[in-house]
Amino acid sequence: MELHLITDGCQSAEQTADIMRLIEPEIDLLHIREKQLSAAELYAFMSTVSEGVCCPPSKLAVNDRVDAALLFGAGAVQLTSHSLPLPLVKRMFPELRCGASVHSLPEALAAEQAGADYVLFGHIYDSPSKPGLPPRGLSSLEELCCAVSIPVIALGGIQPQHVPDIKRAGASGIAVMSGIWKAENPAEVAKEYRSLLMT
Amino acid sequence: MELHLITDGCQSAEQTADIMRLIEPEIDLLHIREKQLSAAELYAFMSTVSEGVCCPPSKLAVNDRVDAALLFGAGAVQLTSHSLPLPLVKRMFPELRCGASVHSLPEALAAEQAGADYVLFGHIYDSPSKPGLPPRGLSSLEELCCAVSIPVIALGGIQPQHVPDIKRAGASGIAVMSGIWKAENPAEVAKEYRSLLMT
Repeated sequence: MELHLITDGCQSAEQTADIMRLIEPEIDLLHIREKQLSAAELYAFMSTVSEGVCCPPSKLAVNDRVDAALLFGAGAVQLTSHSLPLPLVKRMFPELRCGASVHSLPEALAAEQAGADYVLFGHIYDSPSKPGLPPRGLSSLEELCCAVSIPVIALGGIQPQHVPDIKRAGASGIAVMSGIWKAENPAEVAKEYRSLLMT
Repeated sequence: MELHLITDGCQSAEQTADIMRLIEPEIDLLHIREKQLSAAELYAFMSTVSEGVCCPPSKLAVNDRVDAALLFGAGAVQLTSHSLPLPLVKRMFPELRCGASVHSLPEALAAEQAGADYVLFGHIYDSPSKPGLPPRGLSSLEELCCAVSIPVIALGGIQPQHVPDIKRAGASGIAVMSGIWKAENPAEVAKEYRSLLMT
């Protein structure tokens, strides 16, 4: 199972690189989700992280900006409902791994139909980044994992102790934000996630 | 000489299409510069304008978003200092016409060196979109046109009566915003610009 880590817009590129240096082997994909940055700043952010960690570009996913993903040789682009139309992106750049952020079963089915390589589905549990929004829960995750044949990455408030339930629901991986960025010891927590995902 | 029109973020796609329907034959390139829009909204904006006017995508330039330009088959992408690095864009997509927005001679020379197909230079005259910023003036334009061999499109506060001076300075075209969008009769003004550019 895959472990994705999503930047939360609170760390600088240097701080991100500092933490990634400690946990890079545990992480399958680092999502650069820094909506406040210009394209030039985004490119610089990715360069700093990649070079500072000796992390291959293929381990980075770029939120929304297909062009930045292509230019950087990133491993994926993460598209949302605010992004360019996924079917057109996939048709023009079939080699680019495209993830779709979805919040319901119909959205997941549409993303699969449109050629998404995986879906990011959430939020599963109460999450500090979605205050006041009721989580979608394990049963929604299970239903979605049964309905689509592309990998489902579960997102939202996932603590290490949740991993066994997430696995049982049929997900192919988890994506974490505060669980690692806000951890007192990110290296220890990342290893804990990884070890639970592997067992 | 070319006549570029740059959207000013104040018209909806429908309003833009309404005005473009009146003036499309006079315009060489319509720059979609709508920084407040998401990529999905930008794509929809371009579709509405293009279809509503029967304006070929090749007559549209997209500000900043290389991916939107490629997906739409737009005629150009307009890159600024906040955009992805021009040399990398040009290396990866040599067929895509890339304009560079520049504000000085060194920037223009760097853009030419980096493979820009043209530069947009301004602002030449006092402009409502640059309140309080001193214009760069005709002599800067002339100096710049002498120094670079790629086309220079002059921008900023250009009224029809300025066109002869802009031509003498060596520019290959002008770019207009309020001169057309805020005109009482956009069709008449666009024809006036066009006819002065042709003589």
